[in-house]
Amino acid sequence: MQMVATLRHTRASVRLLDRDDPLAEMRERFFLPRGVIYLDGNSLGALPKATPGRLNEVIQREWGERLIRGWNDSGWIEAPQRVGDKIARLIGARPGEVIVADSTSINLFKTLAAALALRPDRRVILSTPDNFPTDLYMAQGLIKQLGLGHELRLVRSDELEESLTDEVATLMVTHSNYQSGLILDMPGLTRKAHEQGALALWDLAHSAGALPLDLHAADVDLAVGCGYKYLNGGPGAPAFLYVARRHQASFSQPLSGWMGHAQPFTFVPNYAPAEGIARYLCGTPTMLSLAALECGVDLLLEADMARIREKSLALTTLFIELVESRLRRFGLELATPRDTVVRGSQVSFRHPEGYAIMQALIHDGVIGDFRAPDTMRFGFTPLYLRYVDVWEAVTRLRRILAEKTWDQPAFKRRQKVT
Amino acid sequence: MQMVATLRHTRASVRLLDRDDPLAEMRERFFLPRGVIYLDGNSLGALPKATPGRLNEVIQREWGERLIRGWNDSGWIEAPQRVGDKIARLIGARPGEVIVADSTSINLFKTLAAALALRPDRRVILSTPDNFPTDLYMAQGLIKQLGLGHELRLVRSDELEESLTDEVATLMVTHSNYQSGLILDMPGLTRKAHEQGALALWDLAHSAGALPLDLHAADVDLAVGCGYKYLNGGPGAPAFLYVARRHQASFSQPLSGWMGHAQPFTFVPNYAPAEGIARYLCGTPTMLSLAALECGVDLLLEADMARIREKSLALTTLFIELVESRLRRFGLELATPRDTVVRGSQVSFRHPEGYAIMQALIHDGVIGDFRAPDTMRFGFTPLYLRYVDVWEAVTRLRRILAEKTWDQPAFKRRQKVT
Repeated sequence: MQMVATLRHTRASVRLLDRDDPLAEMRERFFLPRGVIYLDGNSLGALPKATPGRLNEVIQREWGERLIRGWNDSGWIEAPQRVGDKIARLIGARPGEVIVADSTSINLFKTLAAALALRPDRRVILSTPDNFPTDLYMAQGLIKQLGLGHELRLVRSDELEESLTDEVATLMVTHSNYQSGLILDMPGLTRKAHEQGALALWDLAHSAGALPLDLHAADVDLAVGCGYKYLNGGPGAPAFLYVARRHQASFSQPLSGWMGHAQPFTFVPNYAPAEGIARYLCGTPTMLSLAALECGVDLLLEADMARIREKSLALTTLFIELVESRLRRFGLELATPRDTVVRGSQVSFRHPEGYAIMQALIHDGVIGDFRAPDTMRFGFTPLYLRYVDVWEAVTRLRRILAEKTWDQPAFKRRQKVT
Repeated sequence: MQMVATLRHTRASVRLLDRDDPLAEMRERFFLPRGVIYLDGNSLGALPKATPGRLNEVIQREWGERLIRGWNDSGWIEAPQRVGDKIARLIGARPGEVIVADSTSINLFKTLAAALALRPDRRVILSTPDNFPTDLYMAQGLIKQLGLGHELRLVRSDELEESLTDEVATLMVTHSNYQSGLILDMPGLTRKAHEQGALALWDLAHSAGALPLDLHAADVDLAVGCGYKYLNGGPGAPAFLYVARRHQASFSQPLSGWMGHAQPFTFVPNYAPAEGIARYLCGTPTMLSLAALECGVDLLLEADMARIREKSLALTTLFIELVESRLRRFGLELATPRDTVVRGSQVSFRHPEGYAIMQALIHDGVIGDFRAPDTMRFGFTPLYLRYVDVWEAVTRLRRILAEKTWDQPAFKRRQKVT
């Protein structure tokens, strides 16, 4: 079997895939450290080459030279909407439906509060136990604060459809699972939610910039997403949120800060929400981080999302095939769907020593990450990964497993961030 | 009178003040555009010279080279606490009592929620109508969301003390007023609040970095503050919050995101708050903006807050004296206390045409700002302002008023940000 697979893929055959890759030149637009194969763009995207220069311009020219005038004449005050509109193009939303603000967690709080306010007679928030934890935590905080007896009902993802009953105020799920990469059926679940009178709130953290999305076609009500993963916005980049235009005027979200006020600079003592998506702003936008996010988003807009998806699936399929053929004897258990229709842009393998193996692999220049309790996670970002990187990553992983180099205290010591 | 004043201060006499200024050399640590006199550091602090290099290092070395590893090996994950502890030294708080997170608005929401939870039998939040609007807006949003019938009671600042009754759950006021610069009596009002069983929540937006504060001596319960004003953290820099150690374990704030979890990287589905101040974190910190904030805070730690205060009062006093002597006939009405004990680091003057006058002044290189309806606001930041700048600003303002250059449409057209 190993021989058959080797016949099927060789380093040379994989090289040919790179030669014919229509996205190949996008790699030149990123700064990538020498010797590193970066399979963690799903946790922190790589640095676009345009970003340092742009940030220097924001810092030296706009802040340094223009000072407070930057808010008006450097486009800062419009930046949350401007970058939001750009992200809208990546996710199939319309202009004025997306805004950049705060963190994904905070934005989930705002949009979930909106969903519950729009369905005041219902008490169930439907999600999955393997949703990204901060979404569950924020829901728990909101429920406790509202004190209205809402229930966060967690069911397996394959039970979601049957669990969408007329008790449900809103579905609150992540489109592409952070552990397994499993993609949920956005149009289907949203339709089912609507049939039951519920709303649908989608977390796009592992989807926006990774694959084509069409929120408008799927008739999605609310969504949130992350700026620092596939959007390559830099560490802790601000997040975004989407509210379908039909819902925007129905509710003023509880984090009612001055930037979401109808007239922030009249300084009146009573809150009045801005028209449209701007009411989902709260405090002053973090301009340096937001400028970096815009560089990442601009780069994605240059590439075609359909091509990105095509290459993403080719990369993840190649990785699965190579691991399963070349590393067959090492007990790695695939934790990602084989069906490409429901596979995100990552591949996860389970192994009882996954943490130490991943540390050894990182030490060897192949950077993935680990998600407790036992998942090694490999993200594949088509804009800057080559097929030969996949081959090389598997080669290094094979050596680590064969030589058991992971079996040493230095690789078992837990770091703060895994 | 004009002659007397001119005898008292001349450009030459003012120059002598600069010669003897012990903070004079700090000016060299900032980038200041040629020809500009910047009197708006209370809205957006100037750019420290250290910041562009540091940001470049964070972007190129830490993000670009280290990628996801930056969270562990570049000190990112500890940054909210590390910078919080540095700010603690500026405001008389103890290590572990301050953390950098989110925006001032969001932090007000968290700390006000804490205050109300700590006084569950009380329903009054006591504030002033001229508090910075976002504080009032956030309180309104929280009250509405809690649905427990809390009242935001607004009284004039000179009525605060008598209004601190046993109905009050918490005092929620800004230490230095954003319009007038009036400083409220932090120790006295906090003591009175405590006598009545209430808590005291202080907004330090216009105080932190502008004057010495001693939250510990004043026994303050909760506080929030801004990173982009006197801390020189850059546009939209993240904010900070303070929770006295005695209250930290009593309440888990409602914006319960994963960064405030006891074990964020175990990825369990139920929220459990971190020990100490870390539970006031929510989402992933915006590292680029946070790194810029640290540069600003580091610079302030080099200077002595008592000296900063001394120079601040000398600058504001000089400005008031020069305006009142040299611009006597132009109808500017002082809106800032003459009593230096209760004066912040700014001077405001009212004028019916204040907006246009300020625009003309900005056009002429003296940058202050305007706060509706009629306040021209001039901030004085001792780290980078000279006494001669005050003289020169008044000279230019006199010319604009004498020649009525402000009286043209270009200066009356309202900009988005005033």
